Amino acid sequence: MKKDIGPSELVFPTPVFIAGTYDANDVPNAVTLAWGGVACSSPAAVSIAVRPSRYSYENLMLRKAFTINLPPAKYAKEADYFGIASGKNGNKFAATGLTPVRSEFVDAPYIEEFPYNMECEVTHTLDLGSHTLFIGAVKNVKVGEELLGENGNLLWERAGFLTYDGADRTYRLPGEITEKAFRAGLIFRTESENNAG
Amino acid sequence: MKKDIGPSELVFPTPVFIAGTYDANDVPNAVTLAWGGVACSSPAAVSIAVRPSRYSYENLMLRKAFTINLPPAKYAKEADYFGIASGKNGNKFAATGLTPVRSEFVDAPYIEEFPYNMECEVTHTLDLGSHTLFIGAVKNVKVGEELLGENGNLLWERAGFLTYDGADRTYRLPGEITEKAFRAGLIFRTESENNAG
Repeated sequence: MKKDIGPSELVFPTPVFIAGTYDANDVPNAVTLAWGGVACSSPAAVSIAVRPSRYSYENLMLRKAFTINLPPAKYAKEADYFGIASGKNGNKFAATGLTPVRSEFVDAPYIEEFPYNMECEVTHTLDLGSHTLFIGAVKNVKVGEELLGENGNLLWERAGFLTYDGADRTYRLPGEITEKAFRAGLIFRTESENNAG
Repeated sequence: MKKDIGPSELVFPTPVFIAGTYDANDVPNAVTLAWGGVACSSPAAVSIAVRPSRYSYENLMLRKAFTINLPPAKYAKEADYFGIASGKNGNKFAATGLTPVRSEFVDAPYIEEFPYNMECEVTHTLDLGSHTLFIGAVKNVKVGEELLGENGNLLWERAGFLTYDGADRTYRLPGEITEKAFRAGLIFRTESENNAG
């Protein structure tokens, strides 16, 4: 049996995006966001949803740029702090000891200690209610060399990027692989699909 | 050392959304989408990115409604097939044996066997290039009773909803909990933040 629980935004999984921005005085800020995802492949684009009450909202509106930094498992406490604290009350980089670095591609800082940094320019904003959705065109991605294989393939299992679980409000490690995509489903292909190639 | 790899849309984690739609003849279709996420809390909204070549794209444009169905781990092969196959070449529900049910809330079918179904109305579309981003207002969520705790809390660990890993193109199970959100980061709070409450 199923129950109708009314409208809810909760899904699993959601990412742990640490979005880096500058304020009007070039002070770096970062905020943890689980509401967002990939928006387009070509050109590469991502979405992030931000409450207007957030300090980062003003920064995004002003500088029209942000980075997305994926936190490895060992930085879960820092990732959580970036979500709890506000840039209005203090400098989160100073509090955590993490290092903001000016991007050469967009007008925003990335986090040096995190090995996957997406450098994004705001192309669209959509006011949806409690949150404004920002679409960011990805101008470049910086990857720690330890996460790059010989063919340039991403080995991000080595970092253990976090997942946010909105049901029990926890951070989770990457889980084990259960199936290969674009492979496991072939068992359901019909004869006519197989003949079509 | 870090390397600039140019623009990329890849992030970890991405969800495994099975989006259900009707075509002009009320034939149900479903497609697997990893590009999407939460867009707003109040009103609840989600985003999905769909290529215009997809059969579901026409359905979305025509019916302005969709469901998001989260696949439990045991349906990984079915989830993959919904991404590989096209509704242009056959009925994916017939091929997998899964059951489409007409939503009472929106003009779209949900998947009976999947225990978390979000019923959404399209409110915005954004043509971003290879993909069009659809924003869906969540009108209702259906949850299997086995996933609801005594206080109505979600126990979706019991389902083991899948994650898509775009780096190695695999489906992953939920990983173990490493920290509690809104708690783990408190160790970085400064004295003035603590005094402010």
